[in-house]
Amino acid sequence: MRIALDAMGGDNAPVETIKGAIAALSEIEKLQLVLVGKKEVIEAELSKYKYSKERIEIVDTREVIEMTDDPVTAVKTKKDSSMNRTLELAKEGTVDASVSAGNTGALITASQLKLKRIKGVLRPAIATMFPNKKGHMLMLDVGATADCKPEFLNQYAMMGSKYVEILLGRKEPKVGLLNIGTEEGKGNEVTRGAYELLKENKAINFVGNVESTEVMNGEIDVVVTDGFTGNMVLKTAEGIAKFVLSIIKTEIKKSVIYMLGALLLRPALKMIKLKMDSSEYGGAIFLGLNGLSIKAHGNSDSNGIKNAIKVANRFAEINFVEELKKVIDIDVDKEETN
Amino acid sequence: MRIALDAMGGDNAPVETIKGAIAALSEIEKLQLVLVGKKEVIEAELSKYKYSKERIEIVDTREVIEMTDDPVTAVKTKKDSSMNRTLELAKEGTVDASVSAGNTGALITASQLKLKRIKGVLRPAIATMFPNKKGHMLMLDVGATADCKPEFLNQYAMMGSKYVEILLGRKEPKVGLLNIGTEEGKGNEVTRGAYELLKENKAINFVGNVESTEVMNGEIDVVVTDGFTGNMVLKTAEGIAKFVLSIIKTEIKKSVIYMLGALLLRPALKMIKLKMDSSEYGGAIFLGLNGLSIKAHGNSDSNGIKNAIKVANRFAEINFVEELKKVIDIDVDKEETN
Repeated sequence: MRIALDAMGGDNAPVETIKGAIAALSEIEKLQLVLVGKKEVIEAELSKYKYSKERIEIVDTREVIEMTDDPVTAVKTKKDSSMNRTLELAKEGTVDASVSAGNTGALITASQLKLKRIKGVLRPAIATMFPNKKGHMLMLDVGATADCKPEFLNQYAMMGSKYVEILLGRKEPKVGLLNIGTEEGKGNEVTRGAYELLKENKAINFVGNVESTEVMNGEIDVVVTDGFTGNMVLKTAEGIAKFVLSIIKTEIKKSVIYMLGALLLRPALKMIKLKMDSSEYGGAIFLGLNGLSIKAHGNSDSNGIKNAIKVANRFAEINFVEELKKVIDIDVDKEETN
Repeated sequence: MRIALDAMGGDNAPVETIKGAIAALSEIEKLQLVLVGKKEVIEAELSKYKYSKERIEIVDTREVIEMTDDPVTAVKTKKDSSMNRTLELAKEGTVDASVSAGNTGALITASQLKLKRIKGVLRPAIATMFPNKKGHMLMLDVGATADCKPEFLNQYAMMGSKYVEILLGRKEPKVGLLNIGTEEGKGNEVTRGAYELLKENKAINFVGNVESTEVMNGEIDVVVTDGFTGNMVLKTAEGIAKFVLSIIKTEIKKSVIYMLGALLLRPALKMIKLKMDSSEYGGAIFLGLNGLSIKAHGNSDSNGIKNAIKVANRFAEINFVEELKKVIDIDVDKEETN
């Protein structure tokens, strides 16, 4: 597979993006990378490593969308930015997938603008893996569309089910609707409306409402929600995990015995941090677009970038966009015969 | 002060409710309690303790709203339930405040039905304390109204500020709008609309949007949100905290050295659990009603109940409902002169 990487995107670019690219090359056989960004900067970073020159191509661009840029303005005015060019390569079919750790808002805008929606898709969604007691589940939308209609959530359920079926090999994945109560009729207008649609949708295995206190128990494969709530839950989870670890740290400092205990527990605490660390999951993917756009976390290190490239490679291998089109076609046909 | 307690409400009633009542009597001088519920059950529990008989009165009711009951139906059909009677005592003015650990949905319905809104209040809100790095902050609404208009959030900000000013003694408390981005214009329709109103509201100290990754840093005193999002964030926080502690437990079991480490760390880990434990904060309060209704957590132990009674006592002492009326009057006057 041939994958384009926005070499200038993310808090730790270009050092970690290039390091991650090199790591991906050594782990994935036959991978070809197109590194997009300022040529001289990329070459300077590349000079630190040994690699097979035929496996890397550089596309020179002169602009960079910064993390602090206004997303929409940046995408529209910085036409020669590394992010825009990375996505254009995916659009043209020059590459099989694209990866960026850059400005999230800009990547949402640029991905939609460049790749366009698959015919029949009401709104694209950002889907991400989330840890639970049994391993992982998929959550979507986590930030593409803040104001959702119930119909959007119904499509998210179908696209998310396909993802989990193909990429995690789970048959008839269980779909839960994220809500503030488990009974039918609970929640706000959006969740009440979505419940009605999901209940009647025979293309998915809907198991009902799921509360965020219970969602980590590992019974659900696909968690469906609107982009505002999904993003809020993701950020709350990150905030609380950090908060709990910070009070552990504060408490530990209060006694030498605690410090000794913490020393013994260190590998275990590291394991926990790893489990909560989003860079382990290889980023998020935009579902519903005519092309593959993978978002690595803004503060990704080389490991985060490498894992995002691996995910992009996997999606490209199975031609995931074509698989999604089949799902959406069923939905569109259904709508038309209604 | 004279406080009514729903003796039958909550997962651990009546054992823990009565135990908590007795503990409150010993901690709060001059407190009088009215225990509402099945007389024989309450008396059987009371017989376990020594207490001054003049400080407790029993109001006999024959029905109980169960945790699994449908909220609205239960409140309307179980007229002689302990929860309904507890709130009626607050309405009549027989007591200064009421406390229940019963069915949340039913308590929301019953509180609004019995106590009614203060004139000018668009929607009442449930406000609760939430831990942060510097101590605590107030969050509202955490579940009274799932579908909010921007105007509701603007009033929540005023009511919440009054709460923090009077009860925590913080001057000009900082109000943050819970959102998925910090810049103006971020979020969904509700938060964008609320931002406009909060920015112009001279009665509060609005500091802008706050993301849930940052909200625990302790810079904000009052966190304003709609009831759906607030409830979601609360449940996510609870779920993640439990999840992190559960992976700590699982990791610990993997090695004898870890187990020894955990043993040394035990008091520190206990401290963390306590910090995340909602029963320490004395429950939530309904703001905007003509009377004081305090909600203790459904699975409160005696400590949770005692703390909720203490909070109720404090609110009654300062005549909080009258204070809120002043705030709302300003808002109503402003509206009328516009």
